[in-house]
Amino acid sequence: MDMLWSGWGDPAKAAPLPETVTALLRDLLGVKPRGAAPVALAQLTVPEPPLTADAHRALAAAAGGQEHVRTDAESRVRHTRGKSTPDLLRIREGDLGDLPAAVVLPASHDDVLAVLRACAAHGLAAVPFGGGTSVVGGLAPEPSGARPFVALDLRRMDRLLALDPVSRTATLQAGLRAPHAEALLAEHGFTLGHFPQSYEWATIGGFAAARSSGQASAGYGRFDEMVLALTLATPEGTLETGRAPRSAAGPDLRQLVLGSEGAFGVITSVTVRLRPLPETRVYEGWRFASFEEGAAALRRLAQDGPRPTVLRLSDETETLVGLAQPDAIGAGDAQAAGCQAIAGYEGEAEEVAYRRERAAAVLRACGGTLLGEEPGERWAHGRYSAPYLRDALLDVGAFAETLETAAFWSRVPELYAAVRDALTATLTEAGTPPLVMCHISHVYENGASLYFTVVSAQGEDPVAHWTPAKHAANEAILAAGGTISHHHGVGTDHRDWYLREAGPLGADALRAVKRRLDPAGLLNPGVLLPQD
Amino acid sequence: MDMLWSGWGDPAKAAPLPETVTALLRDLLGVKPRGAAPVALAQLTVPEPPLTADAHRALAAAAGGQEHVRTDAESRVRHTRGKSTPDLLRIREGDLGDLPAAVVLPASHDDVLAVLRACAAHGLAAVPFGGGTSVVGGLAPEPSGARPFVALDLRRMDRLLALDPVSRTATLQAGLRAPHAEALLAEHGFTLGHFPQSYEWATIGGFAAARSSGQASAGYGRFDEMVLALTLATPEGTLETGRAPRSAAGPDLRQLVLGSEGAFGVITSVTVRLRPLPETRVYEGWRFASFEEGAAALRRLAQDGPRPTVLRLSDETETLVGLAQPDAIGAGDAQAAGCQAIAGYEGEAEEVAYRRERAAAVLRACGGTLLGEEPGERWAHGRYSAPYLRDALLDVGAFAETLETAAFWSRVPELYAAVRDALTATLTEAGTPPLVMCHISHVYENGASLYFTVVSAQGEDPVAHWTPAKHAANEAILAAGGTISHHHGVGTDHRDWYLREAGPLGADALRAVKRRLDPAGLLNPGVLLPQD
Repeated sequence: MDMLWSGWGDPAKAAPLPETVTALLRDLLGVKPRGAAPVALAQLTVPEPPLTADAHRALAAAAGGQEHVRTDAESRVRHTRGKSTPDLLRIREGDLGDLPAAVVLPASHDDVLAVLRACAAHGLAAVPFGGGTSVVGGLAPEPSGARPFVALDLRRMDRLLALDPVSRTATLQAGLRAPHAEALLAEHGFTLGHFPQSYEWATIGGFAAARSSGQASAGYGRFDEMVLALTLATPEGTLETGRAPRSAAGPDLRQLVLGSEGAFGVITSVTVRLRPLPETRVYEGWRFASFEEGAAALRRLAQDGPRPTVLRLSDETETLVGLAQPDAIGAGDAQAAGCQAIAGYEGEAEEVAYRRERAAAVLRACGGTLLGEEPGERWAHGRYSAPYLRDALLDVGAFAETLETAAFWSRVPELYAAVRDALTATLTEAGTPPLVMCHISHVYENGASLYFTVVSAQGEDPVAHWTPAKHAANEAILAAGGTISHHHGVGTDHRDWYLREAGPLGADALRAVKRRLDPAGLLNPGVLLPQD
Repeated sequence: MDMLWSGWGDPAKAAPLPETVTALLRDLLGVKPRGAAPVALAQLTVPEPPLTADAHRALAAAAGGQEHVRTDAESRVRHTRGKSTPDLLRIREGDLGDLPAAVVLPASHDDVLAVLRACAAHGLAAVPFGGGTSVVGGLAPEPSGARPFVALDLRRMDRLLALDPVSRTATLQAGLRAPHAEALLAEHGFTLGHFPQSYEWATIGGFAAARSSGQASAGYGRFDEMVLALTLATPEGTLETGRAPRSAAGPDLRQLVLGSEGAFGVITSVTVRLRPLPETRVYEGWRFASFEEGAAALRRLAQDGPRPTVLRLSDETETLVGLAQPDAIGAGDAQAAGCQAIAGYEGEAEEVAYRRERAAAVLRACGGTLLGEEPGERWAHGRYSAPYLRDALLDVGAFAETLETAAFWSRVPELYAAVRDALTATLTEAGTPPLVMCHISHVYENGASLYFTVVSAQGEDPVAHWTPAKHAANEAILAAGGTISHHHGVGTDHRDWYLREAGPLGADALRAVKRRLDPAGLLNPGVLLPQD
């Protein structure tokens, strides 16, 4: 199934906002109904693909057939940009500035190598396309329109290549969507345990390329921690890395490929660590008097254990609005004072019982009140729903976007305040005062992530309203010692701040790698690094 | 205190072998007493340092004074090569082929930058020198003698720069020796938990540069997993990396610096993860009928837990010889049938008790027999003694060396057999049949390390006897799917096999980084990458 071209997910799952929420948005944020409905796909005027007959032939030969090079309007529109709110606002307006020349569907690593050679020969750029869920401008090369590009859609590369139950590893093709991967692994009694919000659509290759982190990262780790080996197709050939779980043989090349977002090559397969399917899963809600108190409790568990599998904490605003359970938005919660946390436990039944009991004792000692399993189940039920909610908000004239960062624990309070203040000040000054909500969703011994959700009126020109606020948030993140992204990635949106974070020598080291692997600069131009 | 110039450690701790062992070596391996004693330091004919007066002045200015540039014979001899067995055999013979022109002792990051600039200006190479414990040729640039080099000894950079008890991080200067670092951290109630065999001499910077792994890695992780941030001084300036425990902002530059062995720059400070000092430490011995059975038990704990803090398993030969406790070598152990394992637990008392009980149940279910705490305590007492034993073996005319690798679990049996067979066949053919022993000392969910110890007669020319055996082991490692080093590193000894492991594109990516950070190729020439 294809995703909604102008929004998120399965079109059948779209649901309008309850009237109570619409009223609240109007009264609280001054949200006004939109004048016009989004354009329809059929109404778009799609320009002819800027692709010569020779290039088309070469791509078809590389991908194994004419039918694997799609130049029809719908295919190209469906591969235009990702799913950030500015991406959605632009495509809803019919802005086709970042349209690919063609969508190419290779079936194997060798196909990908051949497609990259064809692109090099015909002056085309190539943008790897997995689930198409980037929210950081990872699918729109820059400068826009300078060179035609093909979207390299990996959906045909969706096989489980190998499974080693002794080592508990599996080699998965990059185009496998996460639910399909989980289904294949479940047949053997295993799970990856990687459940980010994009889970239902995103692919294994995308998780690796963008250093995804799932909602159960406290227990299963981040995706980059699950990766044991990778195969990368580059215009200069194949790079394979990862012969052992850990090695002292030089710099870890896996960590150079992870997070490279298609700028160094196309990840074609990934060998990942497996875990047994959990016997038990239980999620429960907790309440803390304040974000500070709750954060201290999470830190205690992250540092001294025992570690829940899922561990997250909403701030006061997010708790009040009820966004902790996107499904139940606006349902109202008389108990919503303070901050709600979710602690989840997965694993073998006896071990889960012991861990849960001990973690509960810690949370209680840190001031937490157990709310029972109901809020946990509600969270689990709605864990992939927030992007649908965003579509509904856009429909009624509201603006909604998210951004995220991470820092060492001692910097978290300042980072939290700085980003919230930057967003609030900038959008208020622009005449669209926002509601800014935040949660901690990933904890480490030494720090945590902060995930912000911003809702405001759209204003005259919502992208123009948002851009300065996003930039102000980026500046606040760098100034407060955070990283420009904890799990969304760099893309083109974060690139300039990312380069400051990497520093001039760090950026130059990456540039040197890029030049060696992609001398023509055809891979995802402008993503991660600016074009030379 | 300085290390024994021609061997390991504190000269006062050297101890001759018991007569029983000498007799065993003679009867079993044909070890003959050495004809001549090693040369004395005072007897060495040390050539004049190949250093112009201008270069000397520039280095002194960079390091903050004349007294921080040492060109005396003893200082230079003490910075010649590392501590591999071939290194020791050469230096015992008075072979000074890899003598530095000078030993430079900078006091700060800025000093290091200045020293590197002085080296660039005067055509000198620079070899970072921490504890001097490399066993892979990491301190002898190649081609030997082509260009004078300075040993950049970091011992003056031995401060704790910052400690953040909330985030549980500390920033340590690179020249801090591990016991000193532990003492500084213990004042605040923390430990690193990093205890490799080189612990008493090695430095924080060396651990990072060579991806060290400690004996308690099952509980505390490898050193590269403890590192949160690094500062690197390069001839082109400073590279700082690490703003959060984890990030999705591009490739992880920390992992490009870790394992770079001084070839990309000089690591001047490292921010590490801290753990609370453990309340309890307990180590116990176990016996398994076979290496295969014991390895299956270790795998079970590594994959399903609970994970001991220390977990190691000697094979039948190592168990029989008693090398599992180097202190007690040759003492004889009537219970030595099968394979001995050590399981150690460190942490908070109640948690340790629970973990120990559950782990014991698993080990028992896997066929293990508990031997009690005595073998564990003996192991702990002798955990840093093996290099002293090597000196004693060399003294009586025996050859002793170690090598190590790691692989995914399913490949471990084949890798074990292949390396053992390659060593045995090559040395037997050379007329010095060896005793080959092995242990697993580092376990992961997906694989484990194998650490081999080889003892034989020295033969006519021990380095010439060893070289083909080492090469055969390296070939066996690559053929059986292992990595060329799990924690010793690459240096010059493993370089050619490392480059095959990295593959041509991987090696080229590293070369591109090296050229950008070290355009003159003055940093540790020939280490990690061959000179252009």
